[in-house]
Amino acid sequence: MVFDPVTLKLNVDPLIEGALREDITQEDVSTNSVMPISVAGTVDLIAKEDGVICGLQIYERVFKLLDPATEFILLPAVEGGKPVQDGDEVKNGQKLAVVNGDIRVLLSGERTALNYLQRMSGIATYTRSVASLLEGTEIELLDTRKTTPNNRIFEKYAVRVGGGRNHRYNLSDGVLLKDNHIGAAGGVKEAILAAKKYAPFVRKIEVEVENLDMVQEAADAGADIIMLDNMDHDTMQKALDIIAGRAEVEISGNVTKENIAKIKDLKVNFISSGALTHSAPILDLSMKNLRPIA
Amino acid sequence: MVFDPVTLKLNVDPLIEGALREDITQEDVSTNSVMPISVAGTVDLIAKEDGVICGLQIYERVFKLLDPATEFILLPAVEGGKPVQDGDEVKNGQKLAVVNGDIRVLLSGERTALNYLQRMSGIATYTRSVASLLEGTEIELLDTRKTTPNNRIFEKYAVRVGGGRNHRYNLSDGVLLKDNHIGAAGGVKEAILAAKKYAPFVRKIEVEVENLDMVQEAADAGADIIMLDNMDHDTMQKALDIIAGRAEVEISGNVTKENIAKIKDLKVNFISSGALTHSAPILDLSMKNLRPIA
Amino acid sequence: MVFDPVTLKLNVDPLIEGALREDITQEDVSTNSVMPISVAGTVDLIAKEDGVICGLQIYERVFKLLDPATEFILLPAVEGGKPVQDGDEVKNGQKLAVVNGDIRVLLSGERTALNYLQRMSGIATYTRSVASLLEGTEIELLDTRKTTPNNRIFEKYAVRVGGGRNHRYNLSDGVLLKDNHIGAAGGVKEAILAAKKYAPFVRKIEVEVENLDMVQEAADAGADIIMLDNMDHDTMQKALDIIAGRAEVEISGNVTKENIAKIKDLKVNFISSGALTHSAPILDLSMKNLRPIA
Amino acid sequence: MVFDPVTLKLNVDPLIEGALREDITQEDVSTNSVMPISVAGTVDLIAKEDGVICGLQIYERVFKLLDPATEFILLPAVEGGKPVQDGDEVKNGQKLAVVNGDIRVLLSGERTALNYLQRMSGIATYTRSVASLLEGTEIELLDTRKTTPNNRIFEKYAVRVGGGRNHRYNLSDGVLLKDNHIGAAGGVKEAILAAKKYAPFVRKIEVEVENLDMVQEAADAGADIIMLDNMDHDTMQKALDIIAGRAEVEISGNVTKENIAKIKDLKVNFISSGALTHSAPILDLSMKNLRPIA
Amino acid sequence: MVFDPVTLKLNVDPLIEGALREDITQEDVSTNSVMPISVAGTVDLIAKEDGVICGLQIYERVFKLLDPATEFILLPAVEGGKPVQDGDEVKNGQKLAVVNGDIRVLLSGERTALNYLQRMSGIATYTRSVASLLEGTEIELLDTRKTTPNNRIFEKYAVRVGGGRNHRYNLSDGVLLKDNHIGAAGGVKEAILAAKKYAPFVRKIEVEVENLDMVQEAADAGADIIMLDNMDHDTMQKALDIIAGRAEVEISGNVTKENIAKIKDLKVNFISSGALTHSAPILDLSMKNLRPIA
Amino acid sequence: MVFDPVTLKLNVDPLIEGALREDITQEDVSTNSVMPISVAGTVDLIAKEDGVICGLQIYERVFKLLDPATEFILLPAVEGGKPVQDGDEVKNGQKLAVVNGDIRVLLSGERTALNYLQRMSGIATYTRSVASLLEGTEIELLDTRKTTPNNRIFEKYAVRVGGGRNHRYNLSDGVLLKDNHIGAAGGVKEAILAAKKYAPFVRKIEVEVENLDMVQEAADAGADIIMLDNMDHDTMQKALDIIAGRAEVEISGNVTKENIAKIKDLKVNFISSGALTHSAPILDLSMKNLRPIA
Repeated sequence: MVFDPVTLKLNVDPLIEGALREDITQEDVSTNSVMPISVAGTVDLIAKEDGVICGLQIYERVFKLLDPATEFILLPAVEGGKPVQDGDEVKNGQKLAVVNGDIRVLLSGERTALNYLQRMSGIATYTRSVASLLEGTEIELLDTRKTTPNNRIFEKYAVRVGGGRNHRYNLSDGVLLKDNHIGAAGGVKEAILAAKKYAPFVRKIEVEVENLDMVQEAADAGADIIMLDNMDHDTMQKALDIIAGRAEVEISGNVTKENIAKIKDLKVNFISSGALTHSAPILDLSMKNLRPIA
Repeated sequence: MVFDPVTLKLNVDPLIEGALREDITQEDVSTNSVMPISVAGTVDLIAKEDGVICGLQIYERVFKLLDPATEFILLPAVEGGKPVQDGDEVKNGQKLAVVNGDIRVLLSGERTALNYLQRMSGIATYTRSVASLLEGTEIELLDTRKTTPNNRIFEKYAVRVGGGRNHRYNLSDGVLLKDNHIGAAGGVKEAILAAKKYAPFVRKIEVEVENLDMVQEAADAGADIIMLDNMDHDTMQKALDIIAGRAEVEISGNVTKENIAKIKDLKVNFISSGALTHSAPILDLSMKNLRPIA
Repeated sequence: MVFDPVTLKLNVDPLIEGALREDITQEDVSTNSVMPISVAGTVDLIAKEDGVICGLQIYERVFKLLDPATEFILLPAVEGGKPVQDGDEVKNGQKLAVVNGDIRVLLSGERTALNYLQRMSGIATYTRSVASLLEGTEIELLDTRKTTPNNRIFEKYAVRVGGGRNHRYNLSDGVLLKDNHIGAAGGVKEAILAAKKYAPFVRKIEVEVENLDMVQEAADAGADIIMLDNMDHDTMQKALDIIAGRAEVEISGNVTKENIAKIKDLKVNFISSGALTHSAPILDLSMKNLRPIA
Repeated sequence: MVFDPVTLKLNVDPLIEGALREDITQEDVSTNSVMPISVAGTVDLIAKEDGVICGLQIYERVFKLLDPATEFILLPAVEGGKPVQDGDEVKNGQKLAVVNGDIRVLLSGERTALNYLQRMSGIATYTRSVASLLEGTEIELLDTRKTTPNNRIFEKYAVRVGGGRNHRYNLSDGVLLKDNHIGAAGGVKEAILAAKKYAPFVRKIEVEVENLDMVQEAADAGADIIMLDNMDHDTMQKALDIIAGRAEVEISGNVTKENIAKIKDLKVNFISSGALTHSAPILDLSMKNLRPIA
Repeated sequence: MVFDPVTLKLNVDPLIEGALREDITQEDVSTNSVMPISVAGTVDLIAKEDGVICGLQIYERVFKLLDPATEFILLPAVEGGKPVQDGDEVKNGQKLAVVNGDIRVLLSGERTALNYLQRMSGIATYTRSVASLLEGTEIELLDTRKTTPNNRIFEKYAVRVGGGRNHRYNLSDGVLLKDNHIGAAGGVKEAILAAKKYAPFVRKIEVEVENLDMVQEAADAGADIIMLDNMDHDTMQKALDIIAGRAEVEISGNVTKENIAKIKDLKVNFISSGALTHSAPILDLSMKNLRPIA
Repeated sequence: MVFDPVTLKLNVDPLIEGALREDITQEDVSTNSVMPISVAGTVDLIAKEDGVICGLQIYERVFKLLDPATEFILLPAVEGGKPVQDGDEVKNGQKLAVVNGDIRVLLSGERTALNYLQRMSGIATYTRSVASLLEGTEIELLDTRKTTPNNRIFEKYAVRVGGGRNHRYNLSDGVLLKDNHIGAAGGVKEAILAAKKYAPFVRKIEVEVENLDMVQEAADAGADIIMLDNMDHDTMQKALDIIAGRAEVEISGNVTKENIAKIKDLKVNFISSGALTHSAPILDLSMKNLRPIA
């Protein structure tokens, strides 16, 4: 999986450039102290932990934006194999890729490139570990809007790479009516009808409900998706009976191994977890063996 | 601790605005469906975990940028106490603040405001837990440049709030000569002299060394700071003997409880940890009880 | 109807500022020639044609962005009436509003403010004239993405004010599978399934079909919306019979008075028209009687 | 006629990029659903109405900005003829050009490219129809500042392609003293003198007059251009007698076929029309036959 | 003289903000080290040289952009006099103004504010000294486009304050045909006619000529302004005889005291000098006596 | 000496683009009047004064940003010599380089390119003349933050090319405690300790002192650099005795030939001068002999 070229150009590049300008406000003083002129070099990208690699294209793009002449070569895990790509499991010590270019560019872009790659790989790794708990079911694992500011496009991509699926991207492209919206509208039904009337009709209407009365009202009013918020197993089963296939069903709340085990028998469609993006630790990766090339 | 008004205006606001535009590319459809006009309301900010709060000013700023008329009131932990501020320990369930304003603004800004506050508080909480292991020593805990892209200013601030100290901000404001720089210069001494000659003289020259020969060379060449990279305890002690106060000393590498316990007797000045910013989980916080006010 | 304050600040202001900088690259030379200092003044906004007014808030915002002290007062059509607002029918000669402020600001902002107001009112006026043809039916009138570049947020708003409804905002917030997508996927069914798998699940899947076989396939594959492209009346009726309520139905193509008359008896949900935004003439409006005030 | 490369890069590209980001805030979901990887393809650009084509370079630029490898080939109207270019009359059904490139780029850029091309061609077509009424006279047809916000550079170019001429570009590069300026200065003469003193001397001073006294005063004070505002034929003739060649003369007001017929015998230099840019309908164009190429 | 509020907002503020971000990429470390919280203070602005003050509004704006609550009070040169304003002659030691506000804001903005004020005052001072040499003549002193990049709006303003007049602002708002344009067109006449045909008619056509043949051709072809480039006194007199009032005349070239003395008897309209903006030394100014206020 | 490619891309290009847009807000009217299509041409860059050339890469970059196909060829001063480079002494009349490309690009970029090159060369020339006065000593010549707004990166580079050295780049990357900071902290010692505690530890702490008591206090408190402000020769000698090598010493104040002669025997490390950047006249350079090439 990679970003398509249009998204890369329009929506990704400005963020990478912002990140580079955050790290280099005038110049890379250390590098310029010792390398006044261009020297061709090469460096290895190496995994320092087992996990799911994610963001190789972004890693490459950091260097390409600094110097289009930079060359990036993905390596196979085993000789003769396919080059590594986003979503592959990588092993501690595995050499993933080689970057060739002006050594100054390699040094100046290193940290920004790794900061993206490590974070995205961390999210993909963590997402896969959670998604695997849902194997054998039809339930899909969803992310949320609990992403790091100015990093959503990277983090939601990493969730997909890890086997999760994306919930709405932002407040503009999806409708999710929460308690405050319901309160403002005067009830579940009123909120759903208001949204059906106001929102571009290509959007589904999702509503978050807390009890069975709300479930009933939401299903009757034609909600497209119903989110069951913090219900116990019994209540969820009753909710599903009420909904009876009239709407898709999302479970939200603390997604732990124990909780997932308990809900696997429920015929819900989705389970969402903020932790995928807000609390995944990074995957350790490193650039090693930078050396000049003749 | 807060950001000064100049930094807030020049360096922070553009990032917050970027984050808001990431979440709202046209409008908050859910909110606008049910609230076509302004309704005054109030909402509580509540801790859902114990930890160190950090980023209250950023949380406030999100709403103020959307509507300068928004009012933000910090609350004391106990009646009659001082209002909560960045760096305070907060308790699960504690009501930290109240936000008053146009309910549409409160709803539209909620997620972005919380995304900042939760991440910054997570970093502060984790930093404090590590820093506390160094209590009773003179050793200071440092962050690194392993920060989330386009979030460095927030994350380095959170490290300070948590009791850590900032290493260089970026490639432009500090000199750190690593193995590649040393290789390019032709040796430790040559690299240090090149940096002393090239860099604005107000910067200290730091050099990363891997063995005692390099330590000797760095100290002799007048390095201001020497970073001992992945040395064992004995070697570090010998390095300190060689340096003999001629330079400040930083230890880098895996900062774990066990490791810290082992190095507490060493007379090093700093220990740096990338995990402070790249792997701290968030602190759970929530906006609750949004309601109209007369 | 107005833009909410969040959208105004985040998504509208940058466009207005761009428009102002397009018209004033250094200074308003004519105005500065004769008015070296601030003089308080007032000016009337007057309709020069009958039509639906739209964009009063944007008109005001142009001046407010130049000088927050500018005052904007909406007037009622008849004494004692409610002040005019977006969506009202206005009459040739009607005085709609008064703007008070620094005369230099009034002069410098006049053209940009009117350019927005005239265009938005033209679209609202034209939309209402088409929408009125659908009165007595359940069919809703939709816009398209055939908007003027960098003006979509204004033009889609104007369609709503005129009584139309918005189709998807852009390529990111809605799925519409056209012949090329179908071809690439290998068939109607394959395209729909691919989209259901790929797209954030909060989006409905719309597919454009050209014949009854495609209609059948789309309905069977679970398309949420089916767009009938350039079908004759009989074929459309057959399509509706095939769909049988399983999907919403949109008609696209030349929307003329005659065409609309013919389809009014069909149980379709939507009819879309690019002309609403790409070919509506402006509504003539004018700023008159600018004069200093004591 | 085309934009020169400097204008294209500095003044046009940022607007096109804004338009693309308006249409693609994260990704083209429909396209990405069915085309995960690059597929080479080709598509035809076809006229669906007779008219004057305008904006071919902008149409091309949209795709080139998304992917520099996109290839754009202009076709001749008849075999062996010259490739079509801006200003040519095209016929309904005429195949104007072929675009080759990554199909995802062709699909994602299609709407933005057409939105520019259709609007610009519409303005060129309408301008030519009006300009033709002036054939056989020395009178030149002028546009105004009544352009669509953030589209002026495209619309004024289209006027030129259609055979019109540009009035001042904006408030900064031309002086036009209207009644309010005259009022502020204390009279026609005072306003002209103030402008001659203040404005960069490379600008001509134009003044808008409403009666013969003002004409006399303006000509005597050395106005470079005098705009006769809404005068009847007789008064205009008298104005011309008063001016007697001392200034260029522009007629402003409702430009209709009838009005133009009436003024063709007058020795005025210019007639200006806002409708050229604010009310021209688009020219219908379409991208057809998108198909993969081996 | 001051910038009007529209220019200030649209065209000046972005440049000042750029300058502030150039000086403060993260924070003012020195100030924040010693002033963690807001302290109200005051500081004096003092002239350290005799000269013409220019840029007081920009100086104020720097602080206002950082903190709108900052107060700026202009002082009279003598008790009871009018407050100092741009264009006034100031004396070494004269206290020009007082700035009150958060001391951190005063310290952080000081250098940027002074950098603008000193440069603008330097240009105004130098311009006045040259302009004074032209006293008693009708000849006006012009600037050129030889300005400091990204500072033109400030420098051209300073020329006006110093008593000079502005030539065209940039390549877009004025036509000046130089030898290369003439060569490309095929002759003086051809170039003038091409420009008259192409350029918006509100612009005057200026042509640079090097000998009397060119003068003749330019005047005959209807040039509005003729620039005599590096001609001796006699040739210039002959050129004036040829032109005979048919065009305005500008002299360009080395403007020195001696040269000006020599041309004062010529009936030229303008003399232009690049040195006004590219080589004027600054006027020394200083902020002193910063102190807290109760 | 040149800018490294990373700095050029991230930190220099946006400024050059801003400068180009300042000079070309819509198009180069003069050039477009006479050159509707691309014509290949060449032009010479010639020195019109003796001096130190600086900014050749920036000059080239201006044209390359407008059209990457532009070719720039540096010439040797004497046949067979090395091509001229930044820092070389050039002679009046020397042909420095040739630029080949679209003549419209050459004409449109000329002024911006020269404005940078002349200013940078002026600063380098002036800096070298001052630096030469320090020959035979160990004293280094420093610049200050008294640079032209939005031109610091160019001006500080030019100082280096001229043989000077850069002081801190801005308020964020260096600590310099002045009287106001000392006052706020409560004393020299307190200010130094506060800065040592607050500032990233990679920065040296510099303090400005006005008398020998302050010198003593600063040296004792561990200041890294002490700036002696406006002291006489005797006092400076006493200060050096007090400091006794414990800190680096910078002299600030009026740097004139006479002053420099007087201090050459002092064992100070640095002398700083604002005039290097704020008052150096430009070096006159010119583009000549533009001509088409076959």
